[in-house]
Amino acid sequence: MVGDGIRKSGKIIMKKFILLPLIILIAGCSNDMDSTIETSTDIEETFNWRLVTSWPKNYPGLGMAPERIADLVEEMSDGQMKITVYGAEEQVPAFGVFDAVSSGSHQMGHSGGYFWKGKVPAAQFFTSVPFGLTADEINAWVNRGGGLELWREIYAPFNIYPIPAGNTGTQMFGWFNKEINSLEDIKGLKMRIPGIGGEVLKEAGGIPVTLPGGELFTALQTGVIDATEWVGPYNDLTFGFHQAAKYYYYPGWHEPGPMLELLINIDAWNSLPKHLQVIIETASKAVNQDMLDEYLAKNNQALTELVEVHGVELRRLPDDVIEEFREISNSILDDLAKEDETISKVYRSYLDFKNNVSAYHKISEDAFVESRNK
Amino acid sequence: MVGDGIRKSGKIIMKKFILLPLIILIAGCSNDMDSTIETSTDIEETFNWRLVTSWPKNYPGLGMAPERIADLVEEMSDGQMKITVYGAEEQVPAFGVFDAVSSGSHQMGHSGGYFWKGKVPAAQFFTSVPFGLTADEINAWVNRGGGLELWREIYAPFNIYPIPAGNTGTQMFGWFNKEINSLEDIKGLKMRIPGIGGEVLKEAGGIPVTLPGGELFTALQTGVIDATEWVGPYNDLTFGFHQAAKYYYYPGWHEPGPMLELLINIDAWNSLPKHLQVIIETASKAVNQDMLDEYLAKNNQALTELVEVHGVELRRLPDDVIEEFREISNSILDDLAKEDETISKVYRSYLDFKNNVSAYHKISEDAFVESRNK
Repeated sequence: MVGDGIRKSGKIIMKKFILLPLIILIAGCSNDMDSTIETSTDIEETFNWRLVTSWPKNYPGLGMAPERIADLVEEMSDGQMKITVYGAEEQVPAFGVFDAVSSGSHQMGHSGGYFWKGKVPAAQFFTSVPFGLTADEINAWVNRGGGLELWREIYAPFNIYPIPAGNTGTQMFGWFNKEINSLEDIKGLKMRIPGIGGEVLKEAGGIPVTLPGGELFTALQTGVIDATEWVGPYNDLTFGFHQAAKYYYYPGWHEPGPMLELLINIDAWNSLPKHLQVIIETASKAVNQDMLDEYLAKNNQALTELVEVHGVELRRLPDDVIEEFREISNSILDDLAKEDETISKVYRSYLDFKNNVSAYHKISEDAFVESRNK
Repeated sequence: MVGDGIRKSGKIIMKKFILLPLIILIAGCSNDMDSTIETSTDIEETFNWRLVTSWPKNYPGLGMAPERIADLVEEMSDGQMKITVYGAEEQVPAFGVFDAVSSGSHQMGHSGGYFWKGKVPAAQFFTSVPFGLTADEINAWVNRGGGLELWREIYAPFNIYPIPAGNTGTQMFGWFNKEINSLEDIKGLKMRIPGIGGEVLKEAGGIPVTLPGGELFTALQTGVIDATEWVGPYNDLTFGFHQAAKYYYYPGWHEPGPMLELLINIDAWNSLPKHLQVIIETASKAVNQDMLDEYLAKNNQALTELVEVHGVELRRLPDDVIEEFREISNSILDDLAKEDETISKVYRSYLDFKNNVSAYHKISEDAFVESRNK
């Protein structure tokens, strides 16, 4: 499935264990014989790969993860591997990343698994589902709880090898121009909210709308939509949503800890020497944490600015609305799991881990945070 | 300060850009002229380093972090760097790690900063302090909130370069043979609890005891102590504390998210080529997350076994006891910060970040977890 797009640099540099034989036949040192000098080297290729993403080039947070992975890989391999990162639309559309990597037109992609729900419904569990796992929890499930093996199994038919590569942490529910005081206020609410979150809103009587990020500000301002979710304070502040909406609602029940993915074409992956594979996996794991660190540090600052400088009103969703959303979410996920055996297998693993980790967190970190905050 | 102990392998393998000069004088292959064959090699050293730790060799969780860092470094450098890991007491005592790295007798160490509070009181903030930062929060403070720069500044006079390298997550308060129903029950309580946690217990009327891990089981069983903290379900289960104590108390207010450290002798560090430095930093960041993932996944399972198989009774500390501990903790930290300008600077940075991140977490992850659990 790998087309001509998989381009390895033809340039060969002499690197690594120049083992000689540098066989020098000094034949005869005499008048009538040739001298033959033969050198043999265990040559090492360089790799120049292309990475396409679903984010605008260098978009703060999301878009910086693939840039950082590329930098780390180049530095750690001492220049043996170079990855060029393209923003959305530069080479393929934002949502064309999966197909580009699958076909082999590009060796690598950076995106979010829930964008491929049409092709691989179970992929959503490896990004985020409503009332699901937080960032730490999904890290533990994927890396140490059997999740990664399932993820690789469901992407293998598409010739893709996925690696966890970033997390924004719990997102905000978003920006509203209507107050939500009860379930009644959800009825008819026009909100930009994609994925299962949108399905939940619809079940509860709202009207989920799909709009690209660039149109959201105007749509909010002109009343085309009543509300929109985006990411969190850090990204939301730069978008200026506080100038177009009255209230900032929490908690972000729809995306509690979305994990992003590095996608690698399997044939390209298999062509790499082992040390470059370990370098890519390790760089991705480091960046997976780095993105969460960055969001956590910058969300704090941005929230302070939103509230103290721009006077943004923070609002908590009423309990009965949260409860309704939670019940609908669970029932949608239960139905989804019935669609086929693969989804069911992933869902069971996810749910087991979630129940287990929730029980543990209740007596550890959650209990601690409660005791600290009192 | 680096003694003879900094041993780089004298073995030189010819690796990378063999650029000459391998000057071979083939004297006399013609009657009256010399042939000169010139090749040039930029030779690359291999590095064989020794790493001492404060943990028993291969101790689950804690002791596996340096082993994993060593494996990743060797794999990513394709054998250019090899790190041999020694358990506590194999080459230096458990608490001799800092001095070994500082003197240069060993290039690397893996330990916890709060062990050095006698020498560097501010080091405690980079591990864990009572009612302080959780794992995610300390990651964000250290890596993205100015913490790392301060940490490197306070270790520099000791010729040590610190890198974050592991976190157990929130620990449990521990194993008790006495019920804690009120502050009165703390009076006279003999508990193994080191560090600032021990100081807090003492202020509240308890008797903090210092004992090595290996003696805790017997001390609990024979009543020499009434209680002990250790780590959490995963490590505690293998120690068998449930056979020697009646109750398992939470939350672990004394160590909410202890960050471990990789210590590197600065002269040894400076002797490394850039790509090996990036490899070590990246491996450590990956392992920092990996340890948390491992503890989170395994603590769940171990907790279930403790409760369902061994019938362990989980108990929550009463609110008034938690409040008393929190007030004492804050006052001890305030006093500590007054000792000198360095501690004060670190404490201000830590506290600012904590206040900020607590405010943000209240409307993001904490609010979400509360809504999920209801």
